[in-house]
Amino acid sequence: MYMVEIIERKRDGGELSTKQIEWFVRAYSDDRVPDYQAAALLMAIYLRGMNRRESVDLTMAIANSGDQLDLHDVVPFVVDKHSSGGVGDKTTLVVQPIVAACGVPVGKMSGRGLGLTGGTLDKMESFPGWSSYLTLEQFKKQLGDIGLVLAGQTASLAPADGKLYALRDVTGTVANVSLIASSIMSKKLAAGADAIVLDVKVGQGSFMPTLDAARDLARLMVDIGKDAQRATVALISDMNQPLGYAVGNSLEVQEAIATLHGEGPPDFSAHCLEVSGHLLNLAGKAGTLAEARQLADEVLNNGRALAKFRLMVERQGGQVDMVDNPDKLPAASLVEPIFAERNGFIAGIDAGVIGSSCIPLGGGREIKNEPIDHAVGMVIPVKVGDHVEAGDLLGTVHANIPEKLSQACLELMASFSWSDQPVPSLPLFYDTVT
Amino acid sequence: MYMVEIIERKRDGGELSTKQIEWFVRAYSDDRVPDYQAAALLMAIYLRGMNRRESVDLTMAIANSGDQLDLHDVVPFVVDKHSSGGVGDKTTLVVQPIVAACGVPVGKMSGRGLGLTGGTLDKMESFPGWSSYLTLEQFKKQLGDIGLVLAGQTASLAPADGKLYALRDVTGTVANVSLIASSIMSKKLAAGADAIVLDVKVGQGSFMPTLDAARDLARLMVDIGKDAQRATVALISDMNQPLGYAVGNSLEVQEAIATLHGEGPPDFSAHCLEVSGHLLNLAGKAGTLAEARQLADEVLNNGRALAKFRLMVERQGGQVDMVDNPDKLPAASLVEPIFAERNGFIAGIDAGVIGSSCIPLGGGREIKNEPIDHAVGMVIPVKVGDHVEAGDLLGTVHANIPEKLSQACLELMASFSWSDQPVPSLPLFYDTVT
Repeated sequence: MYMVEIIERKRDGGELSTKQIEWFVRAYSDDRVPDYQAAALLMAIYLRGMNRRESVDLTMAIANSGDQLDLHDVVPFVVDKHSSGGVGDKTTLVVQPIVAACGVPVGKMSGRGLGLTGGTLDKMESFPGWSSYLTLEQFKKQLGDIGLVLAGQTASLAPADGKLYALRDVTGTVANVSLIASSIMSKKLAAGADAIVLDVKVGQGSFMPTLDAARDLARLMVDIGKDAQRATVALISDMNQPLGYAVGNSLEVQEAIATLHGEGPPDFSAHCLEVSGHLLNLAGKAGTLAEARQLADEVLNNGRALAKFRLMVERQGGQVDMVDNPDKLPAASLVEPIFAERNGFIAGIDAGVIGSSCIPLGGGREIKNEPIDHAVGMVIPVKVGDHVEAGDLLGTVHANIPEKLSQACLELMASFSWSDQPVPSLPLFYDTVT
Repeated sequence: MYMVEIIERKRDGGELSTKQIEWFVRAYSDDRVPDYQAAALLMAIYLRGMNRRESVDLTMAIANSGDQLDLHDVVPFVVDKHSSGGVGDKTTLVVQPIVAACGVPVGKMSGRGLGLTGGTLDKMESFPGWSSYLTLEQFKKQLGDIGLVLAGQTASLAPADGKLYALRDVTGTVANVSLIASSIMSKKLAAGADAIVLDVKVGQGSFMPTLDAARDLARLMVDIGKDAQRATVALISDMNQPLGYAVGNSLEVQEAIATLHGEGPPDFSAHCLEVSGHLLNLAGKAGTLAEARQLADEVLNNGRALAKFRLMVERQGGQVDMVDNPDKLPAASLVEPIFAERNGFIAGIDAGVIGSSCIPLGGGREIKNEPIDHAVGMVIPVKVGDHVEAGDLLGTVHANIPEKLSQACLELMASFSWSDQPVPSLPLFYDTVT
């Protein structure tokens, strides 16, 4: 049987041919290969690995399993951005309006978040009425009209990825670099991006535990992008402490709006400018990365990025008065501050602990399609390296269920580690892979 | 989910606990673990391996998945013998009557052969009317009455093995030492053997390619037997050339009867005496292995082993006149001799090629439950190391389909390799593992 031959080849450490990979993805999509054979192959791939050529072939085969978008009838050049996900990562909400305001149209299809905190679509749904359900025609029209659109991923885009991911999730085969890279990149390729900037997170609040692992993933995704003739850059960024101050859907939207006013947390603002700079640079909007960053900074400060964001909220049915008055966004009924119990330097703020402690509050989901509470979360206005005095504010917990509040406060407190000696601040980025 | 935890532990090279292994086998048997999760675990076991403790636990869990036979109400001591399967391996047909004739009752449940040539039951079904379908009561009665019974394995014996084996077969996870050992030994343990002799074949006509691999399997099976408090010995025997002369069901039965007359091929007769000796020795019938071999030789020469065989055929509905006149057994309509085309020493007779070339004749099966032709096969009355002259008989092909005959003759011819220099004969056994 052909499938057993493919399994045995990978099991024995061999290289799968392009034909074998294409056959497998097509046959599995068509239900001609049963889940148990696909599971055996995935475990063999997990343990034996795939080389660059195999990873590219797998990515292309998954991308080819459904529709291939071509947006060039409405925009001349398509850019896309992907983040591997982190705690407090509201980057898309700021970067996309910046890039669009600089004249580079950006239409993004996002998956729905599973895990610590909500995904981009969950955050945007903090605006009552805002909808990510656009037809392809609506998507293209809005992209052509205002150069900015944020939609849910259609089921017809790389459908093999959804089927494979569901199987990986229940067979212990998620955390393999080739499988992760092909899953991410297949959707970017199918969505028709000409240029892609990848934000690969590393640290306690991400699924990449080490810098080496993050570098391997970044390297492979950039290689896949290049082999598929797309301009691709990956940034490796820190996710040991939360990005910015706010963690939680509505709280993050408020912080994004503040950032679009030029008043965001310094770390998050700098992160957004760097990502935007790379996107503008790949799109040919500037001669150098420094010039591109400068362009991005300008539209943050002159209000044009915020205006783009407001327009996008309006076009997709959201209440723009909440953009103008972010205080009107959903707010939690209980807000509990926590204070430092000692003097000292903050040595760590465990983003993993903070992310996990937001799930019981209702801010993230453990099961697909679970409803989430947009109002809850935490705001932590301090950073690793800061010196604080006993009694200083470390953060606030925002909750709607009284019984969950005190546990979340304890966990927020426990996420801090301390030092009597000065501690260097954490870098925003570790590396750029081109 | 508990199953994902188990998969991930083995995937990462960890040791599974007794509880985890028992839980998996029970849950998979009860259809509470889906095939795709079992397949992922099997591939992780295949690539990461299992240690002795895990292998014993897996064996016991599979043995415990169905009925546990206890034959001590009809016989005081139960011996069993297992062969890993080879070309021309009719050993059971001779060893069992020998052992029974020496006063050690032997009741064997055999699986059905899949592959090169038929299994023991297929060979016995060369006797029209002979049946392996016995109820447990019939099995016990015959064992008590005549001390010899040969039956098909009941579905209630180690049923988890059947389910696991079917999955391994289609997921590229057959050839792992722990999975093979647990599959074999679980059935022996469930069948209630007090003492077990394992005949592990190595060479071109077996599924163990190297002596090291055979030693590992033998070592592990003996260890499992010991840990389960069964006296266990494994012999590692040659399967580069066919065992004895005859290959094919009816042809092998004829050779077995000749051997029970004391007139078998020297290699096959010696092989049977060695295996019988170990069984009698474990059963306490002799003070030493040499004495046990002597006992076995006596019942071969005084006709008592043959008489036992005849009685078993009779009790299970076979025609005993075919035991008395083996010429009456099913015979092929076409018998084609092949002759040496050169002088020289036989350097090899590839048992794998000979086994494979019997399948198209109809003597083996590629698909479960396929009918087979008992009459066809080959007889090769020469051995590696023999010196032959051009024109000497090398063998005969026995066929019923004219179109298949010439191809089989070519393949038999091609199975020989030659040398001008003297070639040592192949050993019967390479090692004994206790």
